[in-house]
Amino acid sequence: MNPVRDGRLRLRRLPLDTLRQNVAFIARDCPLFRPERFAGFGKVEVRAADGRALIASIDIVDDPVMVGPAQLGLPEPAFRRLGAAEGAEVTLTPVRPPASFRHVRRKVAGEVLDEAALGEIVRDLVGHRYSDMEVAAFLVACASALGPEELLALTRAMIDSGETLRWNRAPIADKHCVGGIPGNRTSLVVAPIVIAHGLTIPKTSSRAITSPAGTADTMELLARVDLGPDAMREVVERVGGCIVWGGHVNLAPADDVLISVERPLGLDTPEQMVASILAKKVAAGSTHLLIDLPVGPTAKVRGAAEAARLRKLFEFVGRRVGLQVQIDLTDGSQPVGRGVGPELEVRDVLAVLEGRPEAPESLRARCLRLAGQVLEFDPALAGGKGEARARDLLDGGDARRALDRLIEAQGPSPLTRRLGGIVDEVAAPRSGVVAAVDCFRIARIARMAGAPVDPGAGVEMLRRIGDPVSAGEPLFRIYASEEADFRFAAALAAEDSGVRLAGEVAP
Amino acid sequence: MNPVRDGRLRLRRLPLDTLRQNVAFIARDCPLFRPERFAGFGKVEVRAADGRALIASIDIVDDPVMVGPAQLGLPEPAFRRLGAAEGAEVTLTPVRPPASFRHVRRKVAGEVLDEAALGEIVRDLVGHRYSDMEVAAFLVACASALGPEELLALTRAMIDSGETLRWNRAPIADKHCVGGIPGNRTSLVVAPIVIAHGLTIPKTSSRAITSPAGTADTMELLARVDLGPDAMREVVERVGGCIVWGGHVNLAPADDVLISVERPLGLDTPEQMVASILAKKVAAGSTHLLIDLPVGPTAKVRGAAEAARLRKLFEFVGRRVGLQVQIDLTDGSQPVGRGVGPELEVRDVLAVLEGRPEAPESLRARCLRLAGQVLEFDPALAGGKGEARARDLLDGGDARRALDRLIEAQGPSPLTRRLGGIVDEVAAPRSGVVAAVDCFRIARIARMAGAPVDPGAGVEMLRRIGDPVSAGEPLFRIYASEEADFRFAAALAAEDSGVRLAGEVAP
Repeated sequence: MNPVRDGRLRLRRLPLDTLRQNVAFIARDCPLFRPERFAGFGKVEVRAADGRALIASIDIVDDPVMVGPAQLGLPEPAFRRLGAAEGAEVTLTPVRPPASFRHVRRKVAGEVLDEAALGEIVRDLVGHRYSDMEVAAFLVACASALGPEELLALTRAMIDSGETLRWNRAPIADKHCVGGIPGNRTSLVVAPIVIAHGLTIPKTSSRAITSPAGTADTMELLARVDLGPDAMREVVERVGGCIVWGGHVNLAPADDVLISVERPLGLDTPEQMVASILAKKVAAGSTHLLIDLPVGPTAKVRGAAEAARLRKLFEFVGRRVGLQVQIDLTDGSQPVGRGVGPELEVRDVLAVLEGRPEAPESLRARCLRLAGQVLEFDPALAGGKGEARARDLLDGGDARRALDRLIEAQGPSPLTRRLGGIVDEVAAPRSGVVAAVDCFRIARIARMAGAPVDPGAGVEMLRRIGDPVSAGEPLFRIYASEEADFRFAAALAAEDSGVRLAGEVAP
Repeated sequence: MNPVRDGRLRLRRLPLDTLRQNVAFIARDCPLFRPERFAGFGKVEVRAADGRALIASIDIVDDPVMVGPAQLGLPEPAFRRLGAAEGAEVTLTPVRPPASFRHVRRKVAGEVLDEAALGEIVRDLVGHRYSDMEVAAFLVACASALGPEELLALTRAMIDSGETLRWNRAPIADKHCVGGIPGNRTSLVVAPIVIAHGLTIPKTSSRAITSPAGTADTMELLARVDLGPDAMREVVERVGGCIVWGGHVNLAPADDVLISVERPLGLDTPEQMVASILAKKVAAGSTHLLIDLPVGPTAKVRGAAEAARLRKLFEFVGRRVGLQVQIDLTDGSQPVGRGVGPELEVRDVLAVLEGRPEAPESLRARCLRLAGQVLEFDPALAGGKGEARARDLLDGGDARRALDRLIEAQGPSPLTRRLGGIVDEVAAPRSGVVAAVDCFRIARIARMAGAPVDPGAGVEMLRRIGDPVSAGEPLFRIYASEEADFRFAAALAAEDSGVRLAGEVAP
């Protein structure tokens, strides 16, 4: 039997993990598909007999034991995504660049795109037909170059790109933080307060991409977060809210593709922020949205002019897609609370919810301020009565009990809570007063220590801006579980701790 | 002996070819470096004991036979680039994004970059510290957003990024085609004419990235082209010129990095074109440059306004970097000559140089026009005497003899000239007159047929715009050496041949 008949190869599963990239491993002497020919294009479509297909880049194999000339090797993630059996016949065709990329070229050349063109782009993004560099080109081409109408069209296309949830009640509230501030884990306090009041808040949240923890990573230490749309609906209808990972709910999935490129590039374009956030919330069925917009020298938004521009964009697009948007410009000068990393953040959150004396005031005050504004979406509390009500619900233990109901409804956490056992302190090089904290640096140190893959790793801040410190006293602690992780984090902190004393300049 | 001491892994060579990407294969249970931690950053620096290093993305291996926990696997290209022995100890450190990328972010936000910032970016590009998506972000951020002074600064930084050649004679002439027109292989005729006249033309040229042939690919069928700077200098001093591949000469290497991303994206930003072309030529020591700028509906430059803008940019930057630039707007409506693909193009070139009756007039006329303008860089021919002189040198056989001297000096070709044996014709679906030819489509069909990896593959055009054709008569021939290649090319041609008869619209 000739295994390469009718232009088919046999699928082989490879013990490799190429993370979110799809890579197809093809023998150099594969008679069906000379891989070198496609070096300039680089992508192929792999199609199984049942029609399922994926797009992959090519690596060439010179070892017949690994991949024979009649075989196609797929690493674990792509093998799973294709869903065919080992040994199944697959066909291979070279992929041309996505047709919609011509609109990106037009945008690069300065043209204005209409809803149809943006819709085509978004459908190809969701179909994973754009390479990372094509996504980057689209993001940058849109940066500061999308007019309000284009931004609205992009938002609408993103809403239409996935599932949309509808609820038989109103209002449906949500809060969202623009991000970039380590430890700003307010959702785990705000959502329980809102639920305790009786407003509905179906919150989907993200896992960290380059940050040391996303809301979903932190919540996962308390409950299951990988719910699908049906399970999520059940929880919301029972409890009045949820805090789940958005990855299984498929709301505005184009956003996930854009973010997967935007984060590693450290790009946060206003256009992308507005379209991504509003599309996700409208798809989730929200009617009222509070946005926490931290402003600070190392936050995503660095000054008042930028914040004002963002506010206008949020309000314009929000109005046109039927979402009432409230923007709160908050302090983005330093981490919130003490913990940075999932386990450390959970400890802060529970201390606040349980009113314990060690509860960090910076986190508590911020949660009350944000929850108060969300509560004022309830007409009965409008006009300034939200924060007092939030304080009552927090201090009376109602919020804590609401979190318990959430946890019970979502199901038990698959993880074990354990703080990293390798601990060391980073000390002040001299005496002085803390003048600034580099949020990006702190996040990176926590990330190097292992967070969020290791939920027990991270950074515990021991000093805040304005605090005096003597030479040799600790500025923060690093927690890790693995020696190698600890070394990378400590080396980073030794080079630049991110904490500046008055009169000090960054290294 | 513990093989993982002092944070070192042992290098293992993998029988894989990841083409121009560097990928490091690390065991999931590598105790030194937990690869999952770095998924969000994705890049590591691999450093050998002698200090040589490279930057690679990570794939995770779950098979100890392939890569053990104390090993680091490098596929063939990265292994060669690192230059260490199998089993050598290497260290691994996570790579932070290149520091200069902050300037790209500033450019995305609309700021103006100075020479220092652009210099930093270019140095990181040349050091291969940018990922493809970072390069894409830089390219798009610059598109239509670089002022003339920024463009000049970028060009200067690119000149300084590699070797520069200096010649003890003047003028040093060159010609360059902006590209995009299949079969436009004029350099192989123009350079011999210029050499025969006695002007110096040290021509470096590129290999195809996404096109079916570059000048270097075609020349390689006649002579060696992979000369280093010293060998190139020797040839030029002996013969008065050369046609070599730029890959070993290291002139303005930042350009190669930008082009490697720009081509697959199908982006040709005016800024990138101007900086790339002028930087390469100044680095090669040229004093006078003729640019062939084809204008046509499927060429890179599609209209008069775009051509005029490009001309201004070329002239402004050229003047400031000391290069006299002459722009010739040429016909970019269809392929030049008949052949598309290295062997087919060599046949056209030799037919023109040898004055044979089958020589395609479109190629001959274009070569004379371009050569005439280069010859007028000689003050003795200025003012319109160039083309007649070019015709004399071509028709008298002097150019053919100059090519022989070039071939003799560069050394014999490493390739065998052989036209693909699988041939079929693509026929006109009805009778009519050829009204348009899609250059991009023809290039893609030739590429699918196997060009340039298979130099004998390609497309032979049998009809030009204005030619009548009867139903069933051939429009062009496809040549391939492998059945699979042929099938892909034929399928592409069947879907859309790229040749439009009058009254026909594109599929």
